[in-house]
Amino acid sequence: MSHNSFGHLFRVTTWGESHGPAIGCVVDGCPPRIALTEADIQPWLDRRKPGGSRFVTQRRESDTVRILSGTFDDGDGSVTTGTPISLLIENEDARSRDYGDIARAYRPGHADYTYQAKYGVRDPRGGGRSSARETAMRVAAGAVARRVLGPDIRIRAGVVQLGSHRLDPAQIDLEAADDNPLYAATRDIAEWESYLDSVRKAGSSIGAVVALEVTGVPAGWGAPVYGKLDAELAAGLMSINAAKGVEIGAGFAAAELSGEDNADEMRIGPGGEIAFLSNHAGGILGGISTGQPLVARVAFKPTSSILTPRRTVDLAGEEVDLHTRGRHDPCVALRAVPVVEAMAACVLADAMLRHRAQVG
Amino acid sequence: MSHNSFGHLFRVTTWGESHGPAIGCVVDGCPPRIALTEADIQPWLDRRKPGGSRFVTQRRESDTVRILSGTFDDGDGSVTTGTPISLLIENEDARSRDYGDIARAYRPGHADYTYQAKYGVRDPRGGGRSSARETAMRVAAGAVARRVLGPDIRIRAGVVQLGSHRLDPAQIDLEAADDNPLYAATRDIAEWESYLDSVRKAGSSIGAVVALEVTGVPAGWGAPVYGKLDAELAAGLMSINAAKGVEIGAGFAAAELSGEDNADEMRIGPGGEIAFLSNHAGGILGGISTGQPLVARVAFKPTSSILTPRRTVDLAGEEVDLHTRGRHDPCVALRAVPVVEAMAACVLADAMLRHRAQVG
Amino acid sequence: MSHNSFGHLFRVTTWGESHGPAIGCVVDGCPPRIALTEADIQPWLDRRKPGGSRFVTQRRESDTVRILSGTFDDGDGSVTTGTPISLLIENEDARSRDYGDIARAYRPGHADYTYQAKYGVRDPRGGGRSSARETAMRVAAGAVARRVLGPDIRIRAGVVQLGSHRLDPAQIDLEAADDNPLYAATRDIAEWESYLDSVRKAGSSIGAVVALEVTGVPAGWGAPVYGKLDAELAAGLMSINAAKGVEIGAGFAAAELSGEDNADEMRIGPGGEIAFLSNHAGGILGGISTGQPLVARVAFKPTSSILTPRRTVDLAGEEVDLHTRGRHDPCVALRAVPVVEAMAACVLADAMLRHRAQVG
Amino acid sequence: MSHNSFGHLFRVTTWGESHGPAIGCVVDGCPPRIALTEADIQPWLDRRKPGGSRFVTQRRESDTVRILSGTFDDGDGSVTTGTPISLLIENEDARSRDYGDIARAYRPGHADYTYQAKYGVRDPRGGGRSSARETAMRVAAGAVARRVLGPDIRIRAGVVQLGSHRLDPAQIDLEAADDNPLYAATRDIAEWESYLDSVRKAGSSIGAVVALEVTGVPAGWGAPVYGKLDAELAAGLMSINAAKGVEIGAGFAAAELSGEDNADEMRIGPGGEIAFLSNHAGGILGGISTGQPLVARVAFKPTSSILTPRRTVDLAGEEVDLHTRGRHDPCVALRAVPVVEAMAACVLADAMLRHRAQVG
Repeated sequence: MSHNSFGHLFRVTTWGESHGPAIGCVVDGCPPRIALTEADIQPWLDRRKPGGSRFVTQRRESDTVRILSGTFDDGDGSVTTGTPISLLIENEDARSRDYGDIARAYRPGHADYTYQAKYGVRDPRGGGRSSARETAMRVAAGAVARRVLGPDIRIRAGVVQLGSHRLDPAQIDLEAADDNPLYAATRDIAEWESYLDSVRKAGSSIGAVVALEVTGVPAGWGAPVYGKLDAELAAGLMSINAAKGVEIGAGFAAAELSGEDNADEMRIGPGGEIAFLSNHAGGILGGISTGQPLVARVAFKPTSSILTPRRTVDLAGEEVDLHTRGRHDPCVALRAVPVVEAMAACVLADAMLRHRAQVG
Repeated sequence: MSHNSFGHLFRVTTWGESHGPAIGCVVDGCPPRIALTEADIQPWLDRRKPGGSRFVTQRRESDTVRILSGTFDDGDGSVTTGTPISLLIENEDARSRDYGDIARAYRPGHADYTYQAKYGVRDPRGGGRSSARETAMRVAAGAVARRVLGPDIRIRAGVVQLGSHRLDPAQIDLEAADDNPLYAATRDIAEWESYLDSVRKAGSSIGAVVALEVTGVPAGWGAPVYGKLDAELAAGLMSINAAKGVEIGAGFAAAELSGEDNADEMRIGPGGEIAFLSNHAGGILGGISTGQPLVARVAFKPTSSILTPRRTVDLAGEEVDLHTRGRHDPCVALRAVPVVEAMAACVLADAMLRHRAQVG
Repeated sequence: MSHNSFGHLFRVTTWGESHGPAIGCVVDGCPPRIALTEADIQPWLDRRKPGGSRFVTQRRESDTVRILSGTFDDGDGSVTTGTPISLLIENEDARSRDYGDIARAYRPGHADYTYQAKYGVRDPRGGGRSSARETAMRVAAGAVARRVLGPDIRIRAGVVQLGSHRLDPAQIDLEAADDNPLYAATRDIAEWESYLDSVRKAGSSIGAVVALEVTGVPAGWGAPVYGKLDAELAAGLMSINAAKGVEIGAGFAAAELSGEDNADEMRIGPGGEIAFLSNHAGGILGGISTGQPLVARVAFKPTSSILTPRRTVDLAGEEVDLHTRGRHDPCVALRAVPVVEAMAACVLADAMLRHRAQVG
Repeated sequence: MSHNSFGHLFRVTTWGESHGPAIGCVVDGCPPRIALTEADIQPWLDRRKPGGSRFVTQRRESDTVRILSGTFDDGDGSVTTGTPISLLIENEDARSRDYGDIARAYRPGHADYTYQAKYGVRDPRGGGRSSARETAMRVAAGAVARRVLGPDIRIRAGVVQLGSHRLDPAQIDLEAADDNPLYAATRDIAEWESYLDSVRKAGSSIGAVVALEVTGVPAGWGAPVYGKLDAELAAGLMSINAAKGVEIGAGFAAAELSGEDNADEMRIGPGGEIAFLSNHAGGILGGISTGQPLVARVAFKPTSSILTPRRTVDLAGEEVDLHTRGRHDPCVALRAVPVVEAMAACVLADAMLRHRAQVG
């Protein structure tokens, strides 16, 4: 048990605070002889990194990852050795002075109060451990997980709802999310862009929903009863900062379906394979993958740091009104898109190894 | 790691198939000197047990629980001893003949195909391990967890949406759920009852949403980053049969909120305590409890077993049309209500012990 | 984490007290499609069971094991299904009255005092959870593990030292241990038998050393650094009741060896395979199996229950002299022989699955 | 599960290779508000560090530890915050050229062959992950564990046997081990020093036995059945490089004791406390601490790297004779003394937290 680790066989431990000298992770259990260099990880970090557009925090971090252990190059290129992979990113732009005024007051919607209530102490600089900065290491670990999973498993996520603006199912194109600063699952982002600009200029923030789809997962991964693939995905996704809901397949909409409409019928496909006629299950039945695409959605709350003063209390038990300054995102969900993908990658790499262990 | 266990310090392992001789669980890590007899567990099982109304499966089970270990009566009544508590329920009404015709075909919406794909073998009788019968042991373990948590922590759940019929927030009364056969969070169940009767008579089924509220949890339980209380609740709730979505606090609705509306402001209450002015967070910030009520909702899909023939395939790879007979629930979510409560109890008992370990 | 579980992927959880209604275990993570019936387990229990000779406790238990879950017979014989295997043995000869006089006093050398100090309560009947009766379930789980490992892995143990009577290395024949009531690793047991009779008649007891050898383990099982095969074997063997020491290969004798004498040189064998010229390592280097036989030895203390009155204290803090009556073994190590084998089997089955997971 | 982690609540994960850029560890689960700076850790590392005397490897490492996360100074000095503590030491003197000639041949007694057999690849530079360099991080983590345990728990170890030279029980003074370059549990080291010089000059090596004693552990720590304190100590100690045997209390000598002699009788001490009349149990009964000193001994094999050429094989399957050059210790057990202490500290900190969790 470790509060800062997840996964069973492909096991990730992260560490680091927003304004400490560095953040990092240890990936243990990675199979050996997988080609891996920093260049396999860096692009995923670049995709998530702050400062990339006006819609994400203006904190300037190069987020340059270093592999400190677990790989070796014996002449044919660097490969994993089966030993723990230590990854490290130095914090470069940690302006602690920005946070001086909030060191004593609890920012509403943040973890300040709960960390203090639990530990009796907290690192207030940039949110300390509770900062979304930690998610950089999820993305780094996810890059390793992708190498374990191989190219046949394709993991894509994108924003499908921004505030009350929802994409129609027909509009959704997860391929598009890589190509626009909103990580939107559509190429038609003009309206969203203008909307989010207005939110940003107002010093406000807004929530969003991120959709995830994974193709190429064979039938049979996951396990009953408490090791269900959907339960582990739910835990992994819900552990992302600001996540407030997770659904699989039809999700909450399944509550309105009849048994006739919900259960995915099966036929034999042209190649003799099992072919499902729909995918309300989201690719998982009884906690085990069906071979259909894995489909999930994650709801994110709006960034809690906004320019409008908020009523709160401070360490001394005094009522205060707090202006949050510092650098923040108008929609924290945007940068969560690569994190959602990374968590899915890690959960699946773990499921793959566990499946191989039990079933061979 | 164990696919059939959950919890870290308060750790529950369940076993058993729907039509095997018995089902059971082992609760390890329970603190000592807690009064516990079968009479503390049985009422919770009775509440969940099949055959109780026309809205749940007509399988007849007394669901009589036996404590086989972990308690001792030295004259002052039976108490836990700190050693593993083994609980067992014999299966009485396991009519395997009902399931003979489905032993070879994969029931759509069930785990038949995925178990076969994973293991190359499965116990088809009543769904084997994937049967909701397993949830009886969650309820039994939850009864032990409630004893650990003590009376100040109050856990209540109820159905707040049945198909497209949703209760208004103002209508919701979780206290009512104990008193009606629909486990509805309202006393005004006439319309739902009539609706569910029509579903049942049509041999169909319908999904539902169950709301959960836990009061009395002090601020400080749970932990960053992968041990977040909401992540563990999400995993626990998503592991319940037929669950397709979990949300905490405002949940998916948070995606539509602005930062101003979402973050719960704080003031000092009349007794000098922290008082939140709203609870969009659902009682959890940064993975740690705030002291406010824990609020979650779980979406359940409709029972997949319905009377209408469904297209599927069989073990031999032949396309077949399958009539599911046997005994089934028109809305599997109803009996999930006690299970939702039990999973919350277990997750919280575990969080309590872990908090005590680290913080003392 | 669970105090009553061990193993990671092949995971065993045991429960039950000496004088409760039953004892049992849950074996989770077993691969599917392995032929398994009660007849595969019972012989191992029969080998360990009390009442078999004058050298072991006269408690009469049939130790009849029942499989309650995790197997299914679809016509070709019962096989594992990949779901948890629940095993149960009813306690038949639990004479609680034998233990009435020790319910309040702490038996020296037993866990009475420490259980009371830890939990503030204990089940004193037959030692409760601390009784060696628990080891029956290790043997049952070990029988399942042997099925997982298959016939090429051969696990044998036997007593090589009884009190100060040690077998010469040349005398040791682990095959013999199955064929004599002393579980001695020799067929020449006359002297030991006469010695142990004298111990028994004196109401005394004596310690012993059990040797273990496992052949057929391929090179590569186990893992650095804290998952070392020898570390896990050491934990498993040291967890057996009355164990006080574990050594691997040359063990404590290695402390007296020079580097020249200790390190096992290598050559190429007749079939082109790696051939070690000695086995001081006991088949493990760097925590990973070498392909040579695994060799370990476990020291057991004498049975603490003897007829001579012993000085102790009771629950009330009074000094008392305690006569232990009841039924006891003059050398508890004898019946530990099947337990040593079983623990090795479980540790190896777990190592096999973990190796398969990471390396494929 | 993680092969490179140990502990349940006080959980240590180490990473790094002998000749990589750095080694490090993450300590998760540490209670908050414990004063901790690098100055609390560095002295323990200095005590273990290579280059300190002619009896240990001449590798020159400053072993300067940095705390990268998990502490915060809010003006009253740096304290733990309850979040993961990341510790890092840069490798400074990693002369990879020293190891060029062994990159292809398997050094007898080392893990070269088994790593290759398992992973199909290995980092041969200085033994890679299997190097004793990893133990520096155990010592660092142990320093944190000591802070958790507090000053009343005193952990001391020392060499009590060097080759065939054993200290008499009356001679043993663990306090002395800090004050001599042999880490000997005696101040009278002239003979040992001269002996080890002769071993060193011969380019040979020798094994040794290290004794451990921990005072101040209250009765009640540890747990049945697989969480036994002795089982966890055994695993922790056996996981140290070159360890071949572990014994608790009387250990292997218990095999020669009678029940009368072995079981520690109890009386009431002058302060009304339980007073044991002997300590054959080594402070643990039934896996739970008795309140007496914890006593263990660990056997270490001789350093496998010696100057005498050894017969071995290489990656190509050719028989070769191998000269190990590089920098090595004549007795690897010497530097294991601080490691033994550190492992004990970590195991005990974990036991303390787990005890507090279950029993409060």
